[in-house]
Amino acid sequence: MENAHIENARAAHVDVQNRSLAIYLPSEKTRVNRIGIDIGGSLAKCVYFKDQALRFASVETEKLDSFLDILKPLVCDGCTKLFATGGGAFKYNEHVVNELKVASCSRIDEIEALIIGATFLMTQVPQEVFVWDNSVPERDPMVPIELPVGVADSYPYMLVNIGSGVGFIRVDGPDKFERIGGTALGGGTLWGLLSLLTPAKNFDEMLQMANEGNHHNLDMLVGDIYGSGYPRMGLSATTTASFFAKAFKQGGETQFAPSDISRSLLIAISYNIAQLAYLHAHYHNIERIYFAGSYIRGHSQTIETISNGIKYWSKGEKTAFFFRHEGYLGAVGAFLSHPSKSVSHS
Amino acid sequence: MENAHIENARAAHVDVQNRSLAIYLPSEKTRVNRIGIDIGGSLAKCVYFKDQALRFASVETEKLDSFLDILKPLVCDGCTKLFATGGGAFKYNEHVVNELKVASCSRIDEIEALIIGATFLMTQVPQEVFVWDNSVPERDPMVPIELPVGVADSYPYMLVNIGSGVGFIRVDGPDKFERIGGTALGGGTLWGLLSLLTPAKNFDEMLQMANEGNHHNLDMLVGDIYGSGYPRMGLSATTTASFFAKAFKQGGETQFAPSDISRSLLIAISYNIAQLAYLHAHYHNIERIYFAGSYIRGHSQTIETISNGIKYWSKGEKTAFFFRHEGYLGAVGAFLSHPSKSVSHS
Repeated sequence: MENAHIENARAAHVDVQNRSLAIYLPSEKTRVNRIGIDIGGSLAKCVYFKDQALRFASVETEKLDSFLDILKPLVCDGCTKLFATGGGAFKYNEHVVNELKVASCSRIDEIEALIIGATFLMTQVPQEVFVWDNSVPERDPMVPIELPVGVADSYPYMLVNIGSGVGFIRVDGPDKFERIGGTALGGGTLWGLLSLLTPAKNFDEMLQMANEGNHHNLDMLVGDIYGSGYPRMGLSATTTASFFAKAFKQGGETQFAPSDISRSLLIAISYNIAQLAYLHAHYHNIERIYFAGSYIRGHSQTIETISNGIKYWSKGEKTAFFFRHEGYLGAVGAFLSHPSKSVSHS
Repeated sequence: MENAHIENARAAHVDVQNRSLAIYLPSEKTRVNRIGIDIGGSLAKCVYFKDQALRFASVETEKLDSFLDILKPLVCDGCTKLFATGGGAFKYNEHVVNELKVASCSRIDEIEALIIGATFLMTQVPQEVFVWDNSVPERDPMVPIELPVGVADSYPYMLVNIGSGVGFIRVDGPDKFERIGGTALGGGTLWGLLSLLTPAKNFDEMLQMANEGNHHNLDMLVGDIYGSGYPRMGLSATTTASFFAKAFKQGGETQFAPSDISRSLLIAISYNIAQLAYLHAHYHNIERIYFAGSYIRGHSQTIETISNGIKYWSKGEKTAFFFRHEGYLGAVGAFLSHPSKSVSHS
């Protein structure tokens, strides 16, 4: 019965399973009965420890109850402790506690959970952090990097967490961090607009369509306006001048392919996040920028667009860093958090 | 015949006519036969001097020929000089010259034209520049401001020109300026996406719909995620967390009103431009930010959103300034430019 539920969860999250996200740890009996859960605006994510591996699963927040059904068989009455973060940890707290019948439920501050998760993944999990580098043919362009020995070497860094919305967090140490900005043009915007514009039913269908699209059918390039580049402004003919502007020029008569629409919007949102991230990092004099959040989903085009945006705006001086478990920082942080660190929400 | 054509132009641009954009100048015979034209990615704008007034007209670039038909009766064979700027001045140069049979056509660099226009409007036209201030009930919140006597007092400023795309221009003096950034999430994006999402056929229908919409039907607020605000992050319950995220949560079954979609997208694009503008101004240590371009169109909601964005991100330290003739800076600049300032495009 338990397996059936977990298999269902796997079927619904093929990309996660395919990417072999499970992390194998030395057996720690004391942690068997912990569950970390991160309930965001669009997605709920959980992390638990079973058969010597950290296991990951996610579901749309709207389907939270089916998620809880998957977790129920894992709960040991009276001994399983739940550590919950994300906005939904407050909104759905009573419901989750009643449904799961956990021994206790600690609510963990969202940013605190993110940073605990980031620190663990950066320092304890081999090949977790990677950069995009397609300069070597036939090599996977997601190239793992060795972080400097001793985490303190890499402070301060900026963590860009891209979920439904986007948060920019300045991190000065494991216990010292601050939200310095954000944008509401995030994953929810991409998914919401594509729900209205395409027949795609979930994130993965949208990303698959984006893979097959050509954004030049919708986006107006500098060359479309000038007939060439505009060297005095440093703009080449292939620079995008205006996302989606061709849809207006061609009016309501033209039908655009859902794949082209998906690709244009994915690039527009991703590039804008990169530009804002760079400007915030510059504002706060921060060298290193890490990108995380369920928006990224290991998707090449998203990662390449963000990476190119950071390179372009920093004139090649900054690099975007990514996490292999990018959607699970908060859930991992909740899972690992110490109960005394839980916060009340007031 | 000439009047009939001009009346047609007026009928197509009611908002412009209603806002009484005509500028009355002392009679200057030498300028009667000049036409300034600014052909952008989505809109063509022109300025000419007739009956002691500067007159303004615009048309979608796709309909350029009907625009030229309006201008033809104004051209005096062998004596009218055309001054053209914008990307289309390069792309459509030969066509425009052949159609209008002008004595000469000088192409003016786009940013140069913008700055000439901005300087003229700021310094020579009373009540041109205004700010948004709705703190006094029953007063028009577009409050004209007196600029410092002597333009040099206000340098450097940043000019944000919002057309199909958006350019950020640092202006250090009448002849000293530089494009320091931009975004392709601009007017073309708003108009293009709304062409795909709503039945609106032109900008003014889209803006009218936005006036009647409620963006809370589509946008996910902090309160929708947390059930309350998140004081530790400085986020109130009514802060927008993710534009359009409710469209995803509610899937393909829900129909959303075109007015709500228009309002959400107008706010999303306008607020993002304001945030990027503020960050670029801070990056370059610039105090004053002016917003121009046909995107704004004197529309209260656009102006209020941009103004609030600048106030929010600058913690009340910066104010957004606007132009009453916001869409015509380039055309005015072309109209006023000295032929020796025209540039070749290479």
